[in-house]
Amino acid sequence: MSLVVVGSVAYDGIETPHGKVDRALGGACTYIALSASYFTRPHIVAVVGDDFASEDEAFLASRNIDLSGLEKVSGKTFFWAGVYSPDMNDRTTLTTELNVFADFKPKLPDSYRRQPYLLLGNIQPSLQRDVLSQMDGLRFAGGDTMNFWITGFRDELLATIKNWDFLLINDSEARLLSGESNMKRAAAKILDMGPNTLVIKRGEYGAMLFRRDSYFVVPGYLLEEVFDPTGAGDCFAGGFVGYLAQCGFDLKDPNIDRKVLHRAVIYGSVMGSFCCEKFGVDRFRTLTRAEIDARFEEFKTFTGF
Amino acid sequence: MSLVVVGSVAYDGIETPHGKVDRALGGACTYIALSASYFTRPHIVAVVGDDFASEDEAFLASRNIDLSGLEKVSGKTFFWAGVYSPDMNDRTTLTTELNVFADFKPKLPDSYRRQPYLLLGNIQPSLQRDVLSQMDGLRFAGGDTMNFWITGFRDELLATIKNWDFLLINDSEARLLSGESNMKRAAAKILDMGPNTLVIKRGEYGAMLFRRDSYFVVPGYLLEEVFDPTGAGDCFAGGFVGYLAQCGFDLKDPNIDRKVLHRAVIYGSVMGSFCCEKFGVDRFRTLTRAEIDARFEEFKTFTGF
Repeated sequence: MSLVVVGSVAYDGIETPHGKVDRALGGACTYIALSASYFTRPHIVAVVGDDFASEDEAFLASRNIDLSGLEKVSGKTFFWAGVYSPDMNDRTTLTTELNVFADFKPKLPDSYRRQPYLLLGNIQPSLQRDVLSQMDGLRFAGGDTMNFWITGFRDELLATIKNWDFLLINDSEARLLSGESNMKRAAAKILDMGPNTLVIKRGEYGAMLFRRDSYFVVPGYLLEEVFDPTGAGDCFAGGFVGYLAQCGFDLKDPNIDRKVLHRAVIYGSVMGSFCCEKFGVDRFRTLTRAEIDARFEEFKTFTGF
Repeated sequence: MSLVVVGSVAYDGIETPHGKVDRALGGACTYIALSASYFTRPHIVAVVGDDFASEDEAFLASRNIDLSGLEKVSGKTFFWAGVYSPDMNDRTTLTTELNVFADFKPKLPDSYRRQPYLLLGNIQPSLQRDVLSQMDGLRFAGGDTMNFWITGFRDELLATIKNWDFLLINDSEARLLSGESNMKRAAAKILDMGPNTLVIKRGEYGAMLFRRDSYFVVPGYLLEEVFDPTGAGDCFAGGFVGYLAQCGFDLKDPNIDRKVLHRAVIYGSVMGSFCCEKFGVDRFRTLTRAEIDARFEEFKTFTGF
């Protein structure tokens, strides 16, 4: 039961109160795939330039990520740089160089088209729609978006998410998309837009999952030190969908086991928390599934009553 | 197993996006006692002026609250007025008239002195200490404080909480008191100041409980409409301590049942959520224990996995 992931593979310059890296492997597709790789085999669709380092490719391959859909073209890889505020709840973008990502037209290798799960990272809604149309026999599909598309490409975005099973966004995006400041009312409006499942990420405060007939809320994991929150939301997405893929879950099934869905939110939270423990993707160089399952059990201990 | 509650009984003028009341029963002691009254018999210590309405006194008595320690003196009752921001996460104080509360010297009726539980609402730390010294054979004691005492009366506050079993504050107060922005590190520092149990309230994001060897985190209840958050933190305190009193719990016991402590945090959250559903104390005019227990079960459903 494996998963197709579409999005950016990039290099990031990151500065947090704990340090600074000038150029580290990043991008939504990278974080999603690394996180999901602990649960299922991710098949990525992305583009990089001829500066993409062979050791970065080797690292992704070492996590059993299928790179057949990683297109390499002449030019430079997408580069982003940003600096976090002292409390790390805010960040300022210093540089965005789209480079080869500017002309990204996702093309799915034939071997991808009949995979059962699709996770669309935050890219232009029309490209997300185009990828969905290339898939055949999907069990479920969905993805992420951001303020930029919600405000500037609203109609296109609505036409895209109309056909998704799930949407994964953060609380400020949920407010912007729904026009409602109350999360329960915002969720009801967004579920009317198409997806049967909505996950709202709340950063350090955790996450919420909404369906028409139920909802689930989990607090965030309390880290003693957040080194770098870059990619945490994407790692949440990778853990959430990766676990559902591992379970062979079908969001369209009217008799779904809600507990499995709730556990997927916990695995998403677990993966997001690990991501923050080191710079960039570094935590995934050593992280094991046993550590992941131990933290899942920790969630049971500190939320159970 | 009943509970002594010390704090303000007041009249409040409240304006929220949902409406406005010019003068409604309020005050920390009032909210705490009303909330705790669903679990145990609260014995209040407070002062009011000769303008205190007989129907308000009758309402408190109807909730089985012991008013022997409600002192009535010549003058006007404490009056506070404030207006909430559109998202209700912030409020501006318009008026604070201490009136008879300015000279409040809590005097415990003899019948109160041997009660097993003491909850000290947010008043001057030296008065809180004085009340504690009047009690005899307590099972546990603790209370609330605020930014004003943390910054301006720090030494006095530290001398006071040194002898408390629990401290109940919000996240910004925890940061101010500990000098740590990270909640886990803040909690460790505060537990070094005396209390064996720390509860940190996070408003709409829920609450956390810390002890040396464990912690518990619960998300906030998702209300579709927050009419008036005034008193929600005090109602949390009343539910938390009220439930522990109902269970005959002893925070000093080295072999405490952590699940009971966790459930107390849930009951605190339940009571805080009900408080927001109507203006001032109005929700407690109709609220039943059956509704409270039903919401407790709802917490199980939306947090269980």
